[in-house]
Amino acid sequence: MDKNRVPGIVVARLPVYVKALNLLLREGRSVVSSEELGERLNMTSSQIRRDFSYFGGFGKKGSGYDIVSLMEALREVLNLNHIWQVLVVGVGHVGKGLLNYDGFSRQGFEIVAAYDADDEVIGTQVGGIDVGDIDELEAFVCTSGVHIAAITVPAENAQEVSDRLVKCGIRAILNYAPILLEVPEGIQVSNIDPVLKLQNMTYYLE
Amino acid sequence: MDKNRVPGIVVARLPVYVKALNLLLREGRSVVSSEELGERLNMTSSQIRRDFSYFGGFGKKGSGYDIVSLMEALREVLNLNHIWQVLVVGVGHVGKGLLNYDGFSRQGFEIVAAYDADDEVIGTQVGGIDVGDIDELEAFVCTSGVHIAAITVPAENAQEVSDRLVKCGIRAILNYAPILLEVPEGIQVSNIDPVLKLQNMTYYLE
Repeated sequence: MDKNRVPGIVVARLPVYVKALNLLLREGRSVVSSEELGERLNMTSSQIRRDFSYFGGFGKKGSGYDIVSLMEALREVLNLNHIWQVLVVGVGHVGKGLLNYDGFSRQGFEIVAAYDADDEVIGTQVGGIDVGDIDELEAFVCTSGVHIAAITVPAENAQEVSDRLVKCGIRAILNYAPILLEVPEGIQVSNIDPVLKLQNMTYYLE
Repeated sequence: MDKNRVPGIVVARLPVYVKALNLLLREGRSVVSSEELGERLNMTSSQIRRDFSYFGGFGKKGSGYDIVSLMEALREVLNLNHIWQVLVVGVGHVGKGLLNYDGFSRQGFEIVAAYDADDEVIGTQVGGIDVGDIDELEAFVCTSGVHIAAITVPAENAQEVSDRLVKCGIRAILNYAPILLEVPEGIQVSNIDPVLKLQNMTYYLE
């Protein structure tokens, strides 16, 4: 299947569906209608069914979807049927937050290494991971087979770190630095920038 | 003007334009075409012009936009012509990261207070802010006139904190807890969840 046949905005909603289904499951539910899912996510049921139709519809039966089956199908589409290893570069507050977050493994991700440039941080253990010296980044990354990295370094170092990671085979970057990274075609970048979210909300505040 | 006349997805792109224009300005540029802006943001120039047309087009002259004027116009639309005060609830790693981030004020936001439930954190100073006792949340928030809060507490406490904030007049919530908050109609919630971004990228990785 051609991955790019599906609009990016539809793909971006799939993890949101997984998250909502997870919550329903924890509430003890086993079946959900597209109407109810829509209400929870502030979407119309027809939009949800249209999103699902890109992947064959996920077999809605009678009055609803079987939550476990739908979640498994969505996770399969998102390639979440195995654990992805993740590298963290930059162990300041944000990096520490990621390293200490215990929810990744449940959701398909495991942080396997962390690097920093600060001598006070190098050699310490954060969230069970020994923080390595950024000078030794390539020695690990280029041979590790890790494809995903989180960049949590200051803005002025982020592009250089990104270039080094991409050269070593990193194909997906979660970028916390407040800049727009330049990467070669085919490399995924997701930006996490609280300011953009705040600025989006203030539009509605006056 | 009816704010909801403009699709949410268009509004969400406005801060991204502001960010890109900011970077161009720092590179010493003064004029930019919609084509170049599009290349930088991986969008078509016609999409950008269509977005801008919701707000009257922002006066493109000849071969491009005057960057300073365009940025000012976008900031005006986003209500960023004054500084918004922000409250942080939860001073763990993520909250500390927000409190120590020095880029907010340049971009229209100022953190004015922080609260936590942990006696070891209450009374300390983080990023120049004295951390208050969460038991005293209402005493401040209900009288402060602050309308924006970041929730950086554990998932199991986030809904309760959200309810308390909304009762005290908070109208926009930046939610870092990995749950979907339930809020009354008209309250803005933006979720920051690295897992959703990671899961979005893995779709393209196999």
